Amino acid sequence: MSLLVVGSLAIDTVEAPGGRADDVVGGAALYFALAASFFTPVRMIGVVGPDFPRGVLDDLARRGVDLAGVEERPGRTFRWSGRYHEDVNVRDTLHLDLGVFGDFQPTVPDVYRDSRHVFLANIDPVLQTAVLDQLRAPGVVGCDTMNHWIAEARPALERLLARVDLVVINDEEARLLSGERNIVKSAACILRMGPRAVLIKRGEYGIIQFAGDSVFAVPAFPLEEVVDPTGAGDCFAGGFMGELARAGDLTPAGLRRAIAYGSVMGSFVVEDFGPRRLLQLTREDVDRRYRQFVSLTNIEIGG
Amino acid sequence: MSLLVVGSLAIDTVEAPGGRADDVVGGAALYFALAASFFTPVRMIGVVGPDFPRGVLDDLARRGVDLAGVEERPGRTFRWSGRYHEDVNVRDTLHLDLGVFGDFQPTVPDVYRDSRHVFLANIDPVLQTAVLDQLRAPGVVGCDTMNHWIAEARPALERLLARVDLVVINDEEARLLSGERNIVKSAACILRMGPRAVLIKRGEYGIIQFAGDSVFAVPAFPLEEVVDPTGAGDCFAGGFMGELARAGDLTPAGLRRAIAYGSVMGSFVVEDFGPRRLLQLTREDVDRRYRQFVSLTNIEIGG
Repeated sequence: MSLLVVGSLAIDTVEAPGGRADDVVGGAALYFALAASFFTPVRMIGVVGPDFPRGVLDDLARRGVDLAGVEERPGRTFRWSGRYHEDVNVRDTLHLDLGVFGDFQPTVPDVYRDSRHVFLANIDPVLQTAVLDQLRAPGVVGCDTMNHWIAEARPALERLLARVDLVVINDEEARLLSGERNIVKSAACILRMGPRAVLIKRGEYGIIQFAGDSVFAVPAFPLEEVVDPTGAGDCFAGGFMGELARAGDLTPAGLRRAIAYGSVMGSFVVEDFGPRRLLQLTREDVDRRYRQFVSLTNIEIGG
Repeated sequence: MSLLVVGSLAIDTVEAPGGRADDVVGGAALYFALAASFFTPVRMIGVVGPDFPRGVLDDLARRGVDLAGVEERPGRTFRWSGRYHEDVNVRDTLHLDLGVFGDFQPTVPDVYRDSRHVFLANIDPVLQTAVLDQLRAPGVVGCDTMNHWIAEARPALERLLARVDLVVINDEEARLLSGERNIVKSAACILRMGPRAVLIKRGEYGIIQFAGDSVFAVPAFPLEEVVDPTGAGDCFAGGFMGELARAGDLTPAGLRRAIAYGSVMGSFVVEDFGPRRLLQLTREDVDRRYRQFVSLTNIEIGG
């Protein structure tokens, strides 16, 4: 079943453990869509300027990403530049230029209005809500957010959270949103805001999911080298929502399998700059690492 | 099969998230032995002063801990006081008084010399080696260490590591020992020093084990409240080595089960000050949380 994503398309410059890369394509929607495209057809809503490389859009289209919702506007594509610390869980934003993203008003094309599976990547919660309002019968809605919206747009964010099923955020955001330092209390607080499950991203320590009384935690796939952490969280969300949309299975087992596939996608993207690694990847690579991931975490190996 | 431990017995004063506790018994050997006693008979080597509470030694004896190797010497028991940060993975030592531990020369009683399973808790690697030298045919030897010995006694520590099977250290120690920041490279470097497996403790993020080409990672059991983190790592080691000694199973499956039991023991001890929680615990409590722990980490729930 196809999966709708709305979010940023960007041109990034990063200083990462693996070195520096200038003007690589990025943005949450790009990473999400690439990762999800291994599982299910993707519909994308976003905005770019004429400076966004046409070839990348062609790559996306070839991978089954529907670009009917991607507008090109006069001006510059959203640009971000940042520097990762030696501890790759920490990064500084060096420069931000919203460009055409600054007055982005997402419009859902008619052919997208029947979307059942939806991911609202990190943008203004007012815009996330506007997308949701344009859908006829969204079934499984996930969202991300960030510190800026938690601090500056909390009422809109809380209204949104009451309408989504799944929240995917990092540990620092979860603490800020809940006002609780302890992760169990923090998750309980967020669940009371409405979603059925909250997935907390802990960088190199993996993911912990809280859903009702059930808790599930997986480590990150251990890698010898992290070249560029950009997009890891978005690729996690893409693999996770992509597998959910493919399988249509929201049981605890289905959610866990989707979390494992998300973790696998997050582990690939960091192996090279920008989306480069994802563009070389095959479905066989994904399934091989999924099996390694299950083995990495399976206590009762061999029964 | 019985399990020998050598390490500190202490009187601690802690400022922890749950408040302050003065003069509670502690020390790596105490925590280790209490945790391991749920799985197997324990033999303990250590030293205390006359100020160490007699009742605690009686408690240990009642739980099947053989105290033939615990000397009482004139002077004060080793005292440590420390303060945990809001991030409980970080702590400051406020005061340290080695007392009778300062010139501790561990002697292995004759009746312990046949010990097959051995844990050398964090003490001077020269003393850890001296214990190993007094054993007739140690079979499965684990050890811990700390930054101080890595920095100040590296040659002795490296000679020890060439003779042990299992190393249990935290992530900061692993980085210092290996000179590698990345955990995969760090573990590979430590494995080249001799041990068959290295288990890296990551505080609230759990444990990751590297053994040959095999990697296994588990999260920590998520808790709503951490009252006092003291002893978590030692209880992990106690549960881990205790289950290994009980089952005599060093296969990958046996190691994983032991890591899960260790994680369970580490999760209990932090629920109250000092060893208080362990002293109330039943084997049924341990098995119940083990089942929860397996479910917490099992991707392929229901197959």
